[in-house]
Amino acid sequence: MRVEIWSDIACPWCYVGKARFEKALAAFPHRDQVEVVHRSFELDPGRAKGDVEPVLKMLSLKYGMSEAQARAGEENLGAQAAAEGLAYRTEGRDHGNTFDMHRLLHFAKAHGRQDELLQILYRANFAEERSVFADADGRLVELAAEAGLDADAARAVLADPDAYADEVRADEREAAALGANGVPFFVLDRTYGVSGAQPAEVFTRALTQAWGERSPLTLLRSTDADAGPDAGAEVCGPDGCAVP
Amino acid sequence: MRVEIWSDIACPWCYVGKARFEKALAAFPHRDQVEVVHRSFELDPGRAKGDVEPVLKMLSLKYGMSEAQARAGEENLGAQAAAEGLAYRTEGRDHGNTFDMHRLLHFAKAHGRQDELLQILYRANFAEERSVFADADGRLVELAAEAGLDADAARAVLADPDAYADEVRADEREAAALGANGVPFFVLDRTYGVSGAQPAEVFTRALTQAWGERSPLTLLRSTDADAGPDAGAEVCGPDGCAVP
Repeated sequence: MRVEIWSDIACPWCYVGKARFEKALAAFPHRDQVEVVHRSFELDPGRAKGDVEPVLKMLSLKYGMSEAQARAGEENLGAQAAAEGLAYRTEGRDHGNTFDMHRLLHFAKAHGRQDELLQILYRANFAEERSVFADADGRLVELAAEAGLDADAARAVLADPDAYADEVRADEREAAALGANGVPFFVLDRTYGVSGAQPAEVFTRALTQAWGERSPLTLLRSTDADAGPDAGAEVCGPDGCAVP
Repeated sequence: MRVEIWSDIACPWCYVGKARFEKALAAFPHRDQVEVVHRSFELDPGRAKGDVEPVLKMLSLKYGMSEAQARAGEENLGAQAAAEGLAYRTEGRDHGNTFDMHRLLHFAKAHGRQDELLQILYRANFAEERSVFADADGRLVELAAEAGLDADAARAVLADPDAYADEVRADEREAAALGANGVPFFVLDRTYGVSGAQPAEVFTRALTQAWGERSPLTLLRSTDADAGPDAGAEVCGPDGCAVP
């Protein structure tokens, strides 16, 4: 079974939702047969790369909240994160464009390190003092190395704006095609979806249901009458290879 | 859409079937949204690692063919390969255990080089003079490097019999669960299957059908009455993050 998770590094509910999903997955009896793939989604794709703002200021400017409202929202998110055992700084965090981080996550995927890097990016963005947006490239190379990636190769990916850019956009197109307009968005075997950081019980139900309903394959074969009765027998098995 | 292909390096129909599938894929309008994953299947898992035999001898010993019959079969396979533009040596090829090559293909997958390595292994086994089985390790390191992998890392994988062994066995268990008892075996979105090196038209039909029948997701959410009407709204979107 495959679970795809669309998320953004700048999304607090993605950070919390990942922990809730992982709690459900850890207790799922068939967890060894579940493959998890992280997919890209940008909350603020229109923001220029260098345009970095404190989260509280962004919230009040963009959504017309008072600073007290913005602060209360962050404290609420912090409490939800804490309930999952996650550190969360309610003040002093930055907001910015995440496209480069998504490119780097695709580079990490190609090297089997995607989950490690995503977890490190979340921790850096939500729990640590230093911004992943300001002076972003040097910082991201450091975090990539922490995730077990080659620092020079990561630097080269960040320096080339085309590197893995198509992969990020393909994920975003796919999210739109699947009807996701917010994140986190979980998709199980392209059959069941879970939108948002739902309680672990919902993920348990989704895993169980998707697992139980895996349908038998429909086998397709040649319908060409000329192909004769042996069409589709071009297969090798423990008893040798069929030869027409 | 995802296509998983179970195959073995020692399987001539897998070599031919890969070319036929790729012909269909190259002409498929949504090919950019098709992800191809190669999965492991061993035709001769019981054979000891060092037990290498000429293919013609193996065929006559294992299946009680005369050498002329075995040779005719190989010539037939060679003609099928040639029809797909593939080189195929009908004489002088070896047969042996492929477990280490499958481990190496999983290592290549983790580094985004799986398809490259598989193609190189097929070419080495079916089209070139030198065996991939005899003096296998040195040869496999060379081929891994040709696929863009780090030679020392590949050597370390081959030297450690546990490296990626679980991944190979998990693929093989999954093949059995899906009802595959021969290869190549193609699975599209876990919905449609194609067994054997069928004509490209069959793959075109499978791709088209699986693409057209992608079903809308069933969204699951909390059914906890205490969760209130906002349950499941813990999501961030272009308009900000919901805060309960």
